[in-house]
Amino acid sequence: MEEQVEMVGRAFVEHYYHLFDSDRASLASLYHQSSMLTFEGQKLQGVDDICSKLNNLPLEKCHHIISTIDTQPSSFPGGIVVFVSGSLLQSGEEHTLRFSQMFHLIPTPEGSFYLQNDIFRLNYG
Amino acid sequence: MEEQVEMVGRAFVEHYYHLFDSDRASLASLYHQSSMLTFEGQKLQGVDDICSKLNNLPLEKCHHIISTIDTQPSSFPGGIVVFVSGSLLQSGEEHTLRFSQMFHLIPTPEGSFYLQNDIFRLNYG
Repeated sequence: MEEQVEMVGRAFVEHYYHLFDSDRASLASLYHQSSMLTFEGQKLQGVDDICSKLNNLPLEKCHHIISTIDTQPSSFPGGIVVFVSGSLLQSGEEHTLRFSQMFHLIPTPEGSFYLQNDIFRLNYG
Repeated sequence: MEEQVEMVGRAFVEHYYHLFDSDRASLASLYHQSSMLTFEGQKLQGVDDICSKLNNLPLEKCHHIISTIDTQPSSFPGGIVVFVSGSLLQSGEEHTLRFSQMFHLIPTPEGSFYLQNDIFRLNYG
């Protein structure tokens, strides 16, 4: 059970950053109308607002390098909380930006997951 | 509603770090038997194991300085996810350690909250 949570959480997160870095518009498939994203303190809700934010970031092309992925089952049946730390490399830049991000994955009737909660912060200092 | 979630989440987190820094043993009141803590990748479950870990950290006395607190309502009725970034100052040390931490707060029948999910990571690099 615990191993499955970890496997599913990791696979989802790797899929998420792969889409982010290769075909950002397709992240829309991972959010629902109820989904919430807090990006550097800015609160967005719903797949349209969230994807509009992600697709218009001042990051034309970037690459996420994952350092750690921690997963736990959540109190929502079948839900998984995931905590990620890593670095963001922007195309044409030499320096990476450290970030942390948390996700709350909720199972869908189709046997997949969507992101209900998503909080992203750059780590300064 | 959204404002209340933010107010409650912030108050809980400030209370948590106040207890951590002033009377760490009393953090036991914020965890239940089902609670999970992942501390720098180490998984612990239940109030006894979690508090034993927290009380035996190689941090005799420390002070948490909070930089950011982001909150969202979770899918669990009345639940709140909180994401914190900040710095940890150890007694007698000059340098702070950056950390990020996420909590999933679940309401109790008594009108309070407990920590079901807690994931802590130091931010290196």
